[in-house]
Amino acid sequence: METPWEYRYAHRMKAMKSSIIRELLKLTQQPDMISFAGGLPAPEVFPIARFQQACNTVLENNGAQALQYGTTEGYQPLREMIAERSLRYGINISADNVSITSGSQQALDLLGRLFLNRGDRIIVENPTYLGAIQAWNAYGADYITVPVDEQGMITDELEGALRKGAKFIYVLPNFQNPSGSTLSLERRRELVRLADQYGVPIIEDDPYGQLRFEGEHLPSVAAIDSEFRGNNGDDYSGNVIYLSTFSKLLAPGTRIAWAIGADNVIRRLVQAKQGADLHTSTFNQMAIYETSKDGFIDQHVNTIRATYKERRDAMLEAMEELFPEEVSWTHPHGGMFLFGILPQSMDATELFKTAVERKVAFVPGSAFHAAGGGENTMRINFSYCTPEVIREGISRLGIAIKEELYKK
Amino acid sequence: METPWEYRYAHRMKAMKSSIIRELLKLTQQPDMISFAGGLPAPEVFPIARFQQACNTVLENNGAQALQYGTTEGYQPLREMIAERSLRYGINISADNVSITSGSQQALDLLGRLFLNRGDRIIVENPTYLGAIQAWNAYGADYITVPVDEQGMITDELEGALRKGAKFIYVLPNFQNPSGSTLSLERRRELVRLADQYGVPIIEDDPYGQLRFEGEHLPSVAAIDSEFRGNNGDDYSGNVIYLSTFSKLLAPGTRIAWAIGADNVIRRLVQAKQGADLHTSTFNQMAIYETSKDGFIDQHVNTIRATYKERRDAMLEAMEELFPEEVSWTHPHGGMFLFGILPQSMDATELFKTAVERKVAFVPGSAFHAAGGGENTMRINFSYCTPEVIREGISRLGIAIKEELYKK
Repeated sequence: METPWEYRYAHRMKAMKSSIIRELLKLTQQPDMISFAGGLPAPEVFPIARFQQACNTVLENNGAQALQYGTTEGYQPLREMIAERSLRYGINISADNVSITSGSQQALDLLGRLFLNRGDRIIVENPTYLGAIQAWNAYGADYITVPVDEQGMITDELEGALRKGAKFIYVLPNFQNPSGSTLSLERRRELVRLADQYGVPIIEDDPYGQLRFEGEHLPSVAAIDSEFRGNNGDDYSGNVIYLSTFSKLLAPGTRIAWAIGADNVIRRLVQAKQGADLHTSTFNQMAIYETSKDGFIDQHVNTIRATYKERRDAMLEAMEELFPEEVSWTHPHGGMFLFGILPQSMDATELFKTAVERKVAFVPGSAFHAAGGGENTMRINFSYCTPEVIREGISRLGIAIKEELYKK
Repeated sequence: METPWEYRYAHRMKAMKSSIIRELLKLTQQPDMISFAGGLPAPEVFPIARFQQACNTVLENNGAQALQYGTTEGYQPLREMIAERSLRYGINISADNVSITSGSQQALDLLGRLFLNRGDRIIVENPTYLGAIQAWNAYGADYITVPVDEQGMITDELEGALRKGAKFIYVLPNFQNPSGSTLSLERRRELVRLADQYGVPIIEDDPYGQLRFEGEHLPSVAAIDSEFRGNNGDDYSGNVIYLSTFSKLLAPGTRIAWAIGADNVIRRLVQAKQGADLHTSTFNQMAIYETSKDGFIDQHVNTIRATYKERRDAMLEAMEELFPEEVSWTHPHGGMFLFGILPQSMDATELFKTAVERKVAFVPGSAFHAAGGGENTMRINFSYCTPEVIREGISRLGIAIKEELYKK
C-alpha cells in the first residue's frame, strides 16, 4: 500500500538539500582516511575530567532542577556569566540580552524564522558559512554576495550590495569559516557605518573569536556598533545580533550556544524557540556553567590556542614544502580553517575525488559560495588532526594536486 | 538611535504569541502557590543516582565521543534500543525508522516545517496539546477540530472533518494532554481505516503511553496501522508518524525524544533537523542510553506508575470530597492530567484569577481549544505535587470554585 506522506511534502522541501558537507563526510569515514573536511575541534583538548566533575557537582547539589524542564531563555547564572564576559569585550549588556540556544545553528534557524519571508535578500560574505545558507534556504532566502580577501569582507563593495535592498548582513568577522580571514578594524567600522546609513541590521557570527593565536584581539562588530551608538549603560539597543558558542571553547557535544541582542529581539527569539524546542537541556546548561566558572574557561582557551597554533603551523609548514607552487592558501591568525586556492583551471570537486582515493579529504570551496563560483577553492581544517597526521595528510593532498595538474 | 530590527520582523511573527501556559506559569511562581498548572513530572522519581552513574560511565569510557559533534539522526545504540522497544509494542521497525529529536516539541516543529504551507488544514482533537498548536501556528496552519469524550476522539465525527481536506490528523491516544482521555481500541481501528480511506496521514503523539496505572495497555495507532497494512518485516512504511520521549520516562531536562516513521519521512526529517540544530546533544543521548539499558527503564517506569497512581487517587478522592457537585472531571487511567468541567455559565479564566489569590493554579481549558470554546474547562496536573499538597490544593480550588459559584 502506498503511504500518502510522500506527495504531501510542502514546497519548502525543495530548498532543503542535505548539506554537501554531511554527504562528503560520509565518504571520509573510510578507514585510514585523513580528513581535513570536518569542522571538528580537537578531542584532545576537551576538558573531560573537569566536565565530569561539573556533572557530578550539578547532579549532587541540584539534580532535581537539572533534570526538570527549564525556562526557554536559559539558565540564569549562565546568561549572567555570558553577559559579564561580553562586558569585558566591550558589549554592554545584561542577562536579559542573552538567550541560550541549542548550538549556534539553532540561532541561525530562529533568526530566519523571525525575519525572513520567501524571496528576502541577505548580504553574505563570499565565501560564507554553509550552515547559515542551509538554515536560511529553508525560509526561501536569496543572497547578495560581497567578496572576501585576507582582510575579510571587502566593504568597498558593500554599499553596492546594500543598494539592492537586504533584510540583514551576515558576517563572520574572526577567522572566518571557510576562508580563515579576519575582518580588519577599519572595515569593521565601515561595516557598522554603512549598515546604519542604510538601516540594515547585522548578524555577527563569532564562534572562533576567542581562538586567536597570533596578533591582537579586535573588538567585535557588536562592540564597535555599541560605541558608534554611544551605548554605555546596560540597555543594549544595538544594530547587531551577536552569536557565539561553547562548542569551540569547551566542547560541541553539549550543544550550548548563545545569542545577544536588544531586549525586543531576544524576547521574540525566545518566543520562536518555545515553539521550536521549548528550551535547551537544563542539565547541559548547568554543567557548562559549572565547568566554565572560576576562570576555568579563560585558562582552558589558552590550552586550545596553543594546540591549534601548533597544528596550523604544522600545516602551513607542510604546505610550503609539499604543495606545488601553483597553489596558494590563506594564513589565518586563529580559528580552525584555512582556504586553499588552486589554479583557475582546476576543479576542487574533481580534486576531491582523486584526494579521497589517496585517503585524504577536504571540502570543495564551491559549497560555501551562496551565489556560485569558487570551483577552484578548498576549505582545509587544521584543528582536528595531530601535527604528525597533518603532515602526512598534506603530503597525500600535495600528491593528489600534482596528479590533477598533470592531467591538464 | 532607532534600531532597524523592530519593523523588519517577518509576517509569521504574528502567529507566534507566547504560549499562554508559559505566561500563566509566571504567575504561579509566587511563593506558597500550589500549582496544578505545569506539565512537570514528579522530581521525586527522577533517577538521579542512576543518571549520574551513567554520565560517569560515558565520560570515562567515551568522553571524546560524547563531547564531539554527532550525526543528525542520533546515537546509533539509542536508535536501536528504541527500535527494539517499539517492536515489543507491535511497531515493526529498524533503527533507520528512528530519528532522535530535541524533545518532542522539536519533532512537532520539524513536521510543521516539512509538511505545512500557509493555510493548510490539520485535524486535531478538541481539546488538544497546546505545544502542537504553537508549533504549527508558526507555519500558518488552520485547524479542523473533532471533539473528544472519555473514549478519546469521537471518530463518528472524523469523516466529516476529513471531507473538508486536511494535511494530516494529529492525535494523542493515551491519557491525552489535556483531557486525560484514552482513545478506545475500536476508535483506534476506525481512525486508521478512515485515514487510509481518505489518504490522510496521522501524527501519533504518545508521551504518556507507558504511564498507565489502570486497565490494559492498548496497541498504538502506529501498531494498528502496521497490522492493517500487513507490515510484518522491518521495512516500516506505515501511514503514522509516531512520537515519544524520555522526558516522561526518565527526565525532561536532557531533552531526548524520538520520531518513528517510514524511511523516506525520517530521511527528510533528518535533513530539516540539520538546518534547525545540527544534532541533539551527543552526551545526553549517550547518558540516556546508558541510564536506560539492561532493563532499568522498565523497572523505573513501574516506580513512576506507582507514584502517579497514588497522586491521581489522592486528587480524585479530594475532588470527590471537596468540589461542589456542579463540577465534573475525567478519570484518567494514566498520564499526568485530568480535565475539570465547570458549569456552562462559569469562565475558567475568571476562576483562575480567584484561584491564584487563593494560592492554587491550573490552566484554563480554552487554551487547548484550537478553534475556540472550552471556556468552562480546566486542565489539572496531578503528577508534580505530593498527595498531601494535592489535597491542600484541591481544597483551595474547591473554595475558589464555590466563591465563583456564589458570584453568579
